Amino acid sequence: MPNVSLAPDSTPYTLPNEASTTLERAELERVTAEQRALGRRIVAVQGLGFVGCIMATVIADATGADGKPIYFVHGHQRPSRRSFWKVPVINTGKPPVSSSDPEVPEIFTRTVDEKKTFRATWHNYAYEVADIVVVDIQLDATKPAFGEAEKGYCDVTHFRDGMRTLAKHIKPDCMILVETTVPPGTCDRIVKPIVEEEFKARGIDTTKYPPLVAHSYERVMPGGSYVRSIRDFWRVFSGVNEQSKRLAREFLTNVLNTEEFPLTELENTNASEMAKVMENTYRAVNIALTLEWARFAEDIGVNVFTVRDAIRMRKGTHDNLLRPSLGVGGYCLTKDPVLANWAMQDVFGIDDSLGVAINAVNINDTMPQHTIDIIKAEYPELRDVRVAVLGVSYIEDVGDTRHSPSATLVRLLKEEWAAVECHDQFVETWPEMEEVSVRQNLAEVIPGAEVIVFAVGHSDYRSLDPLEVLRMNGGKPLIIDCSNFLSDATIRSYLQAGSKVKGVGKGHIPSLA
Amino acid sequence: MPNVSLAPDSTPYTLPNEASTTLERAELERVTAEQRALGRRIVAVQGLGFVGCIMATVIADATGADGKPIYFVHGHQRPSRRSFWKVPVINTGKPPVSSSDPEVPEIFTRTVDEKKTFRATWHNYAYEVADIVVVDIQLDATKPAFGEAEKGYCDVTHFRDGMRTLAKHIKPDCMILVETTVPPGTCDRIVKPIVEEEFKARGIDTTKYPPLVAHSYERVMPGGSYVRSIRDFWRVFSGVNEQSKRLAREFLTNVLNTEEFPLTELENTNASEMAKVMENTYRAVNIALTLEWARFAEDIGVNVFTVRDAIRMRKGTHDNLLRPSLGVGGYCLTKDPVLANWAMQDVFGIDDSLGVAINAVNINDTMPQHTIDIIKAEYPELRDVRVAVLGVSYIEDVGDTRHSPSATLVRLLKEEWAAVECHDQFVETWPEMEEVSVRQNLAEVIPGAEVIVFAVGHSDYRSLDPLEVLRMNGGKPLIIDCSNFLSDATIRSYLQAGSKVKGVGKGHIPSLA
Repeated sequence: MPNVSLAPDSTPYTLPNEASTTLERAELERVTAEQRALGRRIVAVQGLGFVGCIMATVIADATGADGKPIYFVHGHQRPSRRSFWKVPVINTGKPPVSSSDPEVPEIFTRTVDEKKTFRATWHNYAYEVADIVVVDIQLDATKPAFGEAEKGYCDVTHFRDGMRTLAKHIKPDCMILVETTVPPGTCDRIVKPIVEEEFKARGIDTTKYPPLVAHSYERVMPGGSYVRSIRDFWRVFSGVNEQSKRLAREFLTNVLNTEEFPLTELENTNASEMAKVMENTYRAVNIALTLEWARFAEDIGVNVFTVRDAIRMRKGTHDNLLRPSLGVGGYCLTKDPVLANWAMQDVFGIDDSLGVAINAVNINDTMPQHTIDIIKAEYPELRDVRVAVLGVSYIEDVGDTRHSPSATLVRLLKEEWAAVECHDQFVETWPEMEEVSVRQNLAEVIPGAEVIVFAVGHSDYRSLDPLEVLRMNGGKPLIIDCSNFLSDATIRSYLQAGSKVKGVGKGHIPSLA
Repeated sequence: MPNVSLAPDSTPYTLPNEASTTLERAELERVTAEQRALGRRIVAVQGLGFVGCIMATVIADATGADGKPIYFVHGHQRPSRRSFWKVPVINTGKPPVSSSDPEVPEIFTRTVDEKKTFRATWHNYAYEVADIVVVDIQLDATKPAFGEAEKGYCDVTHFRDGMRTLAKHIKPDCMILVETTVPPGTCDRIVKPIVEEEFKARGIDTTKYPPLVAHSYERVMPGGSYVRSIRDFWRVFSGVNEQSKRLAREFLTNVLNTEEFPLTELENTNASEMAKVMENTYRAVNIALTLEWARFAEDIGVNVFTVRDAIRMRKGTHDNLLRPSLGVGGYCLTKDPVLANWAMQDVFGIDDSLGVAINAVNINDTMPQHTIDIIKAEYPELRDVRVAVLGVSYIEDVGDTRHSPSATLVRLLKEEWAAVECHDQFVETWPEMEEVSVRQNLAEVIPGAEVIVFAVGHSDYRSLDPLEVLRMNGGKPLIIDCSNFLSDATIRSYLQAGSKVKGVGKGHIPSLA
């Protein structure tokens, strides 16, 4: 079926054709006129991904002093086979993402069905009528190989195309608010020139209508506070000129909880863009430094996690020291330092590099090798060794597998011909590792496993009864604890039953005495 | 005068001779017997340096449930020409350190003069009578050159000598509590074997009297909370066996404010020793990463300090991001990662290294070069350029010059034949740079200076009136702000008067408009 887009539940949605496009255009005109008549301003959100779809609802949910909605939101999704299904799904009032946050379905029902302030579309006409466009399209970094982040680059082709589409359609006084994490310099050196170029081509006087480009980055966290992490959190913003700064402040103040979480205005968009990637680099570096201490701790009979807790007693200065683990995953920490380094060299042509940042990415990307090393200390030859990997998402109690370190672990194990089985109750399909079946039932992976790797700290894994695991397993498997997920009591149970327990950073394992 | 020790105020104190040693021994016997009769336990503090002299007073100040002193303290200082003067000075009730903390003179008066629970001595007999010895002697790392921390090492000769002295004198059941920051492995692999060896030589049965060696590190901060940073702060400890752990807990609970700042007990002394050096490495790495962002910010018109403030809005996770500056100084952050790396390789013989940690030290040690680069962008030829360096201590509002980055700055400037003048109201003599005169009067350094470097953020520098500086100077000097010490208003005043202002990380300088 070449002309359909399949939703995750396999429902097929027919891609737009000429007829439906004509109808959609008419519908957009009607809805926009209706909303204008209600005094609402029109916002388009470009990209209905992980951030865009929630941000769209937050904007659509915003009310003024009179309690009435301020904005109507056209959520825009390109009609690709991969993503078009989001449009019809959203328009039935359902979120296109699954989440443990109960507010997600609520806010979709409220904005789409009840307030009727949010509607999804694939038609670019949405940009023509918008007073504000919020940009939430993807922008990725490409790393040629793990451990070579210094060669990483950012392919901005798709992003530039998106900006050009906007520039061809928007009103001259429309504000473009870039929310995507972008390489520093993007708003000023990429977005603004594209808009200027297209405005000129459209005969728009850019001295009268200088491009209004602003930047404000989100700090979204998957999980139970998904909506709150977008709406009720500190925001940083800036604009390429005074007017865009003013408009961005007004807009963000209208839609976000800025009373509790005041806005920070920076001097220019370079600064705001830098803040985002520096912020994530800070975390990436703090994780990277823990790995070498984990190895040191293993070698000298120390549990690096108790050491970490001791250090974290210093509230306010040391209490955010991060922890070693299987590795670092997710969308941000793995790529943002690369975006920054690329921007330095390619956007600005500076003959320098962010060496600490890039080194951190390389350490973090190759961290799963250390867990392999721990396994190989017991099984020098991994061929046909049955390994159960518990957890393939990149974060606890969430099904997000983007850049999951478990993928690296599984790949490395398979390269050595180990017999790997994976389990994750939150992950039914693993898009990055389509060749791997992820089981939802522990009884499919535990029995007979010679090595059981606790790779992710899902709550269910932490509370697993060791005796039950061993009963199911039927042997004395090697237990690998990747980030202090197992309590001393649990470890003792495994040891008493004759299993060996090893762990990242766990040089001190409680004795049986 | 070969047989005297000169105090900082130039008072000469005659070094001990045979006669005074006999007298001192008798006095120690008398005092100890008197204090035993009062039911007090005897503590010896080995080393009356920056930590030891204050720790001694804190122990001597401790009282039991009955409000009476628990311990009598013999503060021990070796009778060297450099340090012997501390003994007579302390015994007149005066601190051997100058400090902005008003509690310092108070606690000396209280413990030496009023409670009479603290007395300084140079005689090793103090160790013979002690129930507890607290070790506060120095242990330094040596780096062959800046930027080569990977070749750094720790000369433990002096420390081992100190431990051997203790082992030759202490009672078999005396607890040795090491408070010095030591390479991981020191208590277990250096101190314990020395004590065992000497005990055996003394005919002590080490199965009956295993060495009681414990470790607990301080987290002292110079400045206004000097005493509180030792007494009212979180402590970590461990011991080489259960008895030493128990004794250490009892002792620390008696002398420190553990109700408000609970103790953390770790599994072994390797862990406790690691916690200290990892804790400081964490800070060193967090500073190191800021330098490359400072340079990036300078290149793209961004003020990295406003970016940092924006990031620090994320309370609890990002609010301790440190700041770039002239460089990193002080006793701890510059050496502790080196101690750890050396211990890994030399104490434990591990074929690995703490690469992130060592890289951070190298970046931090060479950071002053960046300030030189900023100056040279304006003065490519530094020969005979008159440079005023404001601030030579390593920290604000304190006169501590240990490993001050200003020393590196001054050295680099002098290497290029600049005419450097230094000012610091807190520093009269600069022990690490004896050839440099440090002025206490700005009128001696500002007039005629072509470059004025705000190197340290002393409050008086921050509040300097730019018009007064320029009037005193008589020209239009280049102003260098090493760590965001100057406000936007101050910078504008300099700019208005025709001076240029540059700064580490300050790519965005407020405009005059």
